[in-house]
Amino acid sequence: MSQFDNVSVIKEANIYFDGRVTSRTVLFADGTRKTLGIMLPGEYEFGTDSQELMEILAGELTVQLPGSEEWIAISGKGEFTVPANAKFKLKVTQTADYVCSYQ
Amino acid sequence: MSQFDNVSVIKEANIYFDGRVTSRTVLFADGTRKTLGIMLPGEYEFGTDSQELMEILAGELTVQLPGSEEWIAISGKGEFTVPANAKFKLKVTQTADYVCSYQ
Repeated sequence: MSQFDNVSVIKEANIYFDGRVTSRTVLFADGTRKTLGIMLPGEYEFGTDSQELMEILAGELTVQLPGSEEWIAISGKGEFTVPANAKFKLKVTQTADYVCSYQ
Repeated sequence: MSQFDNVSVIKEANIYFDGRVTSRTVLFADGTRKTLGIMLPGEYEFGTDSQELMEILAGELTVQLPGSEEWIAISGKGEFTVPANAKFKLKVTQTADYVCSYQ
């Protein structure tokens, strides 16, 4: 079972879209940060501050990356990168478990 | 901001009730374990293996503890303990953020 060791976890959840998207923040010794989150079925738009690597662990969704008209489908495991200061859209059709790494 | 330090976090989420209740497992150096979770509005019944201390960080719910007819209301912060090998019921009316400690 994959786990992150020697980390700190912020106790309070990050709650978005009325609880349909939630995450917990994990802080690493090297100063980097990830969030471990859940997205329930729905359509969402997110904005980035830094570059983000989104790793989908489970679920089913399509994502539209910034500047693209195309919708990329992910079923089960998959990942995509979003540049800093950009917006991206997600259509989640089955509850998605994800890890987001801020780079 | 309150956080847990020097812990391990299991990467994959625990997903119950079709994603309406989800949590992440945090492992402590002393061998103990907590889950950090989110419950969306709904009615749920849970069973315990070990004794559980449920700390509600935010949200609104009522809980019926094992062997009781009474429903206890929690709005915002609150906590309750459930004995091992028991069942308890929750009615969540506003998305609840919680920490569950297994004892």
